Amino acid sequence: MKKYIGIDLGGTNIAMGVVDENGNILHKDSVPTNSPRTAEEIFKDMTDLCYKVVKDANLTMDDITAIGLGSPGSVSDEEGIVSSASNLGIANANARELIQKEINKPVKLENDANVAALGEYTATGNNCESFVFVTLGTGVGGGIILNGQLYTGFNHAGGELGHIVIDINGKPCTCGMEGCWEAYASVTALISQTKEAMEKNPDSMMHQWVKENGKVSGRTAFECAKKGDKAAEEVVDNYRYYIGVGLVSIINIFQPNILSIGGGISAEGDYLLDPIVEFLNKKMFYKRNKTPQIKIAKLKNDAGIIGAAMCAAKEF
Amino acid sequence: MKKYIGIDLGGTNIAMGVVDENGNILHKDSVPTNSPRTAEEIFKDMTDLCYKVVKDANLTMDDITAIGLGSPGSVSDEEGIVSSASNLGIANANARELIQKEINKPVKLENDANVAALGEYTATGNNCESFVFVTLGTGVGGGIILNGQLYTGFNHAGGELGHIVIDINGKPCTCGMEGCWEAYASVTALISQTKEAMEKNPDSMMHQWVKENGKVSGRTAFECAKKGDKAAEEVVDNYRYYIGVGLVSIINIFQPNILSIGGGISAEGDYLLDPIVEFLNKKMFYKRNKTPQIKIAKLKNDAGIIGAAMCAAKEF
Repeated sequence: MKKYIGIDLGGTNIAMGVVDENGNILHKDSVPTNSPRTAEEIFKDMTDLCYKVVKDANLTMDDITAIGLGSPGSVSDEEGIVSSASNLGIANANARELIQKEINKPVKLENDANVAALGEYTATGNNCESFVFVTLGTGVGGGIILNGQLYTGFNHAGGELGHIVIDINGKPCTCGMEGCWEAYASVTALISQTKEAMEKNPDSMMHQWVKENGKVSGRTAFECAKKGDKAAEEVVDNYRYYIGVGLVSIINIFQPNILSIGGGISAEGDYLLDPIVEFLNKKMFYKRNKTPQIKIAKLKNDAGIIGAAMCAAKEF
Repeated sequence: MKKYIGIDLGGTNIAMGVVDENGNILHKDSVPTNSPRTAEEIFKDMTDLCYKVVKDANLTMDDITAIGLGSPGSVSDEEGIVSSASNLGIANANARELIQKEINKPVKLENDANVAALGEYTATGNNCESFVFVTLGTGVGGGIILNGQLYTGFNHAGGELGHIVIDINGKPCTCGMEGCWEAYASVTALISQTKEAMEKNPDSMMHQWVKENGKVSGRTAFECAKKGDKAAEEVVDNYRYYIGVGLVSIINIFQPNILSIGGGISAEGDYLLDPIVEFLNKKMFYKRNKTPQIKIAKLKNDAGIIGAAMCAAKEF
């Protein structure tokens, strides 16, 4: 069975694993990214860890068919470049060259949301025809997998699900448009919504929560809502609605076999999802018997590792 | 060369043509739909016209490989049924059976927006990998063609581009959701927007236009704007913006090789499109060299005939 190295390059950690062609992790490890550093420094740590992870899996580099790398920012597999990955602090890294300088293997590059989508598809997609993955994290990302292949448009710039417009009178998004879904449904947006509610509700349990936990996070409103705090419940209800509105658009466009919801906030599970599914069943355009399965993503932190390996496996 | 009958069943006319496998119309004709009538009556006129159009093309039914039918409403090719086509006044028509009772040929059924998309793709898509067609008419419809095949989701209910949500605080749409693109960018919506502007601007040239032309139409604001009427210009500017916001979402998702704009209002051509393209180039998420070609659709009324025939040609 062919084996690959899947690398998930993140702002905090470089995580990687040796993954077999079916998407099973044989061994995994990680090192801190310690950004901002030069691309040379980051990629040297990365390739060192490649050798370590292969050795710790009781393999040698000869056993590895290819390497897949998922990275934030703008990724060009054609040119072998990772650019404008601002939260890594690197501008134009010759990613393929930097890896191949140390390891003589084929290298496939892909952006992190697409890689995560492919990982999740491998774990839960059951080879279905159409699979859409939405990740609710610092931003809102996504990946579209049709007939087992990532769909990214003719210029590899599609699948930006966080940048569908849900509010024509909306607030500016970092992308230059106004009212993008990301500005409402990301965890960053949830934190803003939570802070706003706290200001308006000085008696809310959320103030106590923040005192105990150090700062406002994506969990603040959810945990206080579960304990019955009205202001927190309102934040959670609105946040679910924001998620639901974007998902209505995605379903009306794609009607995928499976719509998978990942990202940090997906840890809230059914408490997050059940009211959204109820909303979608009422609001999607076709209210037929056969509607998409809407699921919380399964892989959590391993999606990037597995997806990066699968990306390489599709090509090599 | 194989030949097909392509049928475009509309609320006003039943239009059809004999079409060769390359999408060229050899002969075409139409009869009034005269709805509401029973499905039996409508389909009898349809099959009668099939024989006539074949004869007038100097062919016999033996020369025809299959029949394609594009219809409004909910269309199930699997079951051979056209249902809830409310503007035809038919509820559950056994479309395939009604055609095959008179003509012993394979029959392919598809909804009208998908059929038009396929027709336009045949005429202007140049076999590109990804093609999105948006029709701005009574409603807003669409069709997505990926690798030469209609994309409709696992349950054949996808591609409802008019029902992406652009206004989270928006007005109710006929579909049960609020703020759908269709409620802003359809010609029906444009007419409402025009009427509203006329009420607010009793001195607008649009009042005179309506006196001369009998009623408010999709052309009212456009024609008066071209003559410099300020209130009309504002209607047109806003309408372009509404169109543009939906197209931003579509581009950020699909980044198609070609984005084709059809439907009645597309007759306004560059006057409609140029400012929208300028807006899109500023507002789409990736502002790279390679952006989608945005084009006014070419086929106008023949898109349905050609697309219905091509739908049949894909299968038979």
